[in-house]
Amino acid sequence: MKRNRLSVDQYVSGVLKGDRMVLSRAITLVESTLESDQLLAEKVMEQVIPHSGKSIRIGITGVPGVGKSTFIESFGDILLEAGYKLAVLAVDPSSQRSGGSILGDKTRMEKLSADKRAYIRPSPAGSTLGGVSAKTREAMLLCEAAGFGVIFIETVGVGQSEIAVRGMVDFFLLLMLAGAGDELQGIKKGIIEMCDALVINKADGDNVEAAKRAQREYANALHLFPAKENGWYPKVKVSSAVTGDGLKEVWQMIQEYIEKMMSNGFFESNRASQRVNWMHEHIRYLLESRFYQNPKIKELISSSLEDVRNGNASAIAFGRLLVDNFIQIKER
Amino acid sequence: MKRNRLSVDQYVSGVLKGDRMVLSRAITLVESTLESDQLLAEKVMEQVIPHSGKSIRIGITGVPGVGKSTFIESFGDILLEAGYKLAVLAVDPSSQRSGGSILGDKTRMEKLSADKRAYIRPSPAGSTLGGVSAKTREAMLLCEAAGFGVIFIETVGVGQSEIAVRGMVDFFLLLMLAGAGDELQGIKKGIIEMCDALVINKADGDNVEAAKRAQREYANALHLFPAKENGWYPKVKVSSAVTGDGLKEVWQMIQEYIEKMMSNGFFESNRASQRVNWMHEHIRYLLESRFYQNPKIKELISSSLEDVRNGNASAIAFGRLLVDNFIQIKER
Repeated sequence: MKRNRLSVDQYVSGVLKGDRMVLSRAITLVESTLESDQLLAEKVMEQVIPHSGKSIRIGITGVPGVGKSTFIESFGDILLEAGYKLAVLAVDPSSQRSGGSILGDKTRMEKLSADKRAYIRPSPAGSTLGGVSAKTREAMLLCEAAGFGVIFIETVGVGQSEIAVRGMVDFFLLLMLAGAGDELQGIKKGIIEMCDALVINKADGDNVEAAKRAQREYANALHLFPAKENGWYPKVKVSSAVTGDGLKEVWQMIQEYIEKMMSNGFFESNRASQRVNWMHEHIRYLLESRFYQNPKIKELISSSLEDVRNGNASAIAFGRLLVDNFIQIKER
Repeated sequence: MKRNRLSVDQYVSGVLKGDRMVLSRAITLVESTLESDQLLAEKVMEQVIPHSGKSIRIGITGVPGVGKSTFIESFGDILLEAGYKLAVLAVDPSSQRSGGSILGDKTRMEKLSADKRAYIRPSPAGSTLGGVSAKTREAMLLCEAAGFGVIFIETVGVGQSEIAVRGMVDFFLLLMLAGAGDELQGIKKGIIEMCDALVINKADGDNVEAAKRAQREYANALHLFPAKENGWYPKVKVSSAVTGDGLKEVWQMIQEYIEKMMSNGFFESNRASQRVNWMHEHIRYLLESRFYQNPKIKELISSSLEDVRNGNASAIAFGRLLVDNFIQIKER
């Protein structure tokens, strides 16, 4: 049941024309783990990358229940009204324990889904985080080349996916809730250090006062952290996806951030180091996928895995044996 | 200034005799990134592993300021009094942003450091998490072979190191504080799902009531999570490292857990899948270290990294070129 592929030229010209169907097929292509697809995808990316890079890349994270989908729906609407085309990419965490609800959430972004100026795409969960983030990054570049001026990368996870997303965006936003749930959805120091802004969501109705109180508390807490290397102090905002309050302020804050970072040089230096990290991630991904797809390695693993499981074979000695076989070191 | 190495036999017999000096040198050996040291370390591990596996492995995590060091000092004292030998290994997170204070903390465990029945060892921060956790795991096995019956693996991080540590222990304990700091040191769903117990620390003096209230709140919150596959519901305890209150109850809880998991088979099946994961981690580590230590790869990277940085060369195409060179695929 292998689906027909387009030619490199067809993918590239379709993406550059903003053809949503071709864009979707191109993202499917880069997500494929088949070696032949990877080679094709790389040729497509080679030609697409010179046309990428012109969007504002925003990471959005928060625990389940914080209202990411409704926030993205309402916040996205403001960007569409301001004339931007918006792409939303969702990174499913590779954690096997916490099953993500991202795919389910997507159906709830009804308005954005129906709008021709928006494009919504979940990324599949992968066995390695490097693989997931590499593919999300390529999907992001494809969306940029297709003319989307703002990209949201949505993540829900246990830390790993946030770190990966932080490594591919310009601005990282953490959604929070005020009130009773604080203990369960609280923020860790490391997450705060990654964030450029906290937004207290669901600040409407009876919840407005609690949200403003939380805003003050978090703002005070953030004062305890040192300034970031780019000179930006993370801001705390309140917003409501229901009433729309605060959403324009969030967008103003992001624009202010981008302006400052462009003028002090951080915007470009950040993207430059992201490109280098991307290379290292891609190397890791290729090394592992080549390794595990190698027929000889597959055979060795299937014949001896049980011995590793029950402890009869040493996990490290067997690992080294496999790697030696793979890179064909015949002697020492 | 290369330090003299011992022979494989000297390492092995020293470790098995419980010689602390040799144990320390063996851990230093497994932590070395030199290829020759790695080969030597592997031979040592091969002989040591059959003598390992008999300890109770406990992961302890919590944000900075939660009192991990004083908890470990007081809790460790209870284990020593109960006749156990205790090793404490600290995993420094590989995050470059949040500089860990683990090494600083170690000097604060004055009592444990001075006790011959205890052994304290920080692990160095590594560039890859796989590398760090692989070496911590080997250090753990060395300590077991040296006769330590309980191993603490202490971690402070932003999620990544917790996941790695969860993958090598039998029991995972999250330290928390009650009260004003909840927003900052709160727990994420993914972390709770990894934990076998929450312990509200610093439950002494004016703080006792708040700790007990937090205990009730967290216990209620944990009811919302489904039971784990092993049938264990995470417990919430309070303790004080200062007064010693609650520490014996924590130890009783861990013993109860170990007994249950041994009788329902989870203890062994968990360790079996940990061994398989360990093999995969080690493969990843070896692939990357062999790759980046390869002279040809080093040369190619140094000659073209600037082009990747400034965007003149494609990060993914250059990554693939490097990997192709490394595994010597001459044609397609």
